[in-house]
Amino acid sequence: MQRTDVNTLGEFGLIDHLTENFVNKQQTTILGVGDDAAIIAGGDEQIVISTDMLVEGIHFDFTYTPLKHLGYKAVVVNLSDIAAMNARPEQITVSIALSNRFSVEALDELYAGIAAACKTYGVDLVGGDTTSSNKGLIISITAIGRAPAGRITRRSGAKVGDLICITGNLGAAYLGLQLLEREKAVFKDNPEMQPKMGEHAPYLLQRQLRPEARTDMVDTFAKEGIVPTSMIDISDGLASEIFHICKASGVGAIIEESGVPIHNDAQLQALEFNLDPITTALSGGEDYELLFTIDPKDTEKIRFLPDLYIAGEIVAKEDGVKLHTKGGNIHPIKAQGWNHFGE
Amino acid sequence: MQRTDVNTLGEFGLIDHLTENFVNKQQTTILGVGDDAAIIAGGDEQIVISTDMLVEGIHFDFTYTPLKHLGYKAVVVNLSDIAAMNARPEQITVSIALSNRFSVEALDELYAGIAAACKTYGVDLVGGDTTSSNKGLIISITAIGRAPAGRITRRSGAKVGDLICITGNLGAAYLGLQLLEREKAVFKDNPEMQPKMGEHAPYLLQRQLRPEARTDMVDTFAKEGIVPTSMIDISDGLASEIFHICKASGVGAIIEESGVPIHNDAQLQALEFNLDPITTALSGGEDYELLFTIDPKDTEKIRFLPDLYIAGEIVAKEDGVKLHTKGGNIHPIKAQGWNHFGE
Repeated sequence: MQRTDVNTLGEFGLIDHLTENFVNKQQTTILGVGDDAAIIAGGDEQIVISTDMLVEGIHFDFTYTPLKHLGYKAVVVNLSDIAAMNARPEQITVSIALSNRFSVEALDELYAGIAAACKTYGVDLVGGDTTSSNKGLIISITAIGRAPAGRITRRSGAKVGDLICITGNLGAAYLGLQLLEREKAVFKDNPEMQPKMGEHAPYLLQRQLRPEARTDMVDTFAKEGIVPTSMIDISDGLASEIFHICKASGVGAIIEESGVPIHNDAQLQALEFNLDPITTALSGGEDYELLFTIDPKDTEKIRFLPDLYIAGEIVAKEDGVKLHTKGGNIHPIKAQGWNHFGE
Repeated sequence: MQRTDVNTLGEFGLIDHLTENFVNKQQTTILGVGDDAAIIAGGDEQIVISTDMLVEGIHFDFTYTPLKHLGYKAVVVNLSDIAAMNARPEQITVSIALSNRFSVEALDELYAGIAAACKTYGVDLVGGDTTSSNKGLIISITAIGRAPAGRITRRSGAKVGDLICITGNLGAAYLGLQLLEREKAVFKDNPEMQPKMGEHAPYLLQRQLRPEARTDMVDTFAKEGIVPTSMIDISDGLASEIFHICKASGVGAIIEESGVPIHNDAQLQALEFNLDPITTALSGGEDYELLFTIDPKDTEKIRFLPDLYIAGEIVAKEDGVKLHTKGGNIHPIKAQGWNHFGE
């Protein structure tokens, strides 16, 4: 593969090069990349803004992360936050700092992933910054979304008696990461060994390396006439997220183990790793599913919706945050979760 | 000074700690820090968004940069971009990645500077991300501003015959940096040597370490009934910026050396360094003044405004981008500028 040094393009040349194939599609995008700032229409709705920073060696490892998938995932992580506000993502800005280890071709791969995510979710890339770093790659993305004021869903609206719901399934992304780490360790011991991921790997690796954001739920909620009472995206594991909702809402929660969705491949892989599947759902990270609460009067509206599970109930703050296991026991849940600090 | 390890707070504890003293003041800030995303009112105007990333060792050097000034400057750099759109900044998000070399007390200093800038400019901190890095400090800020659609000023509207204007003065920030670099070199050779910055240093160091954004000009333009035909902020030197305007507008420019404002301290310091003062204005960076063009019919509206200089005229594209020197010569200007790539 050709290796063009980033310095041959210069900063502005590099930005032009990386963004030349992005076409704005959102009506609200008045002006995109190329000026001091992007311009976005104000309109009759409210605007939500979220930002995330991904650091090489902390959030991703190039031993097993393809650049294109990284670009895709970096966007998805941010769109997931917009979906968690029950808003539609419309624009992103992308800033990157990179060491001179990265060639233009490598950046093109990264931006191909960013472009693929923009296409999948119909969002416009409207700005960013490109600079050098002393070490590794850092990606900072800001996502901008929009929703009618009355539909925006915060973490703080859960009420006693509300049902706790989860989309998709949990734990698979964490197990995908464990598979990758295991093979990395094997490879370090013996670089001639071919990876043997096992039969559950394809789904688990996809969940880890190329997750999707549940922006589809924003449309589903609108279609079904539901506004969740609270919502958060599950990036740090179910335990951490339910604690965020309980703290913000001043309530407690009881989670039914039998209601927590876990994919069959994740179930089987967890057992192979001698892990309890519910632990991977509670403490694993990066599933990017949605955790939300609804008023019980909306139960019939969601009961038969696909890919959506009722997994517990909001209780009084004094009752704490607990898990009702399949065996019938009640355990307190601890707010452990994915901690990118000091890892 | 006490040194509290960042890990003792955890990511969420750290965010709470760093943002607890920020109070939202903008009517458009519906919800700030603490949820998946911030919420900002849509309103009748357009929204402008700009983002910048600052990397330790590339954009700043802790040998001579106080953390509080760094926090202040990191905000100012972004507000300057919003001012360059002729919009009023209203919100910022701040993401930081930091190695475990930084204590909570160090971060508090950084955020004290961020808070000071928020107070000076009346902007709200509404979100961000905090994570660890393998090396050094990286700050990524996104600024959000607002303006009536008809007042937003892009780079692309300059027309032949328009007057070229500059606010404040140029070159001083670059000379401040040269002073700091000189003293750093002296200190490396002999750590017992006390810095001798010279009589021009106070102003030049202030311009380098604690610059201001010309958001006041947005109010001035509104009051005087002027909409510039094009505008950009001068972060990479006058030469680089006039090229951006000429490229975006499809025009050329002639800059009058006699019209380029240079502070007396900068003049004298440049001569001490054996530099031509106009070179520091053309190729130095980080002045964060505004370069804009106006229709000649608006000349009377700006002629007697303080701190604002007419420094040339927009000409046809074929005539190129040139400098008319005090000596009466015409030189082509090259688009060299501040390049953070590969430094």
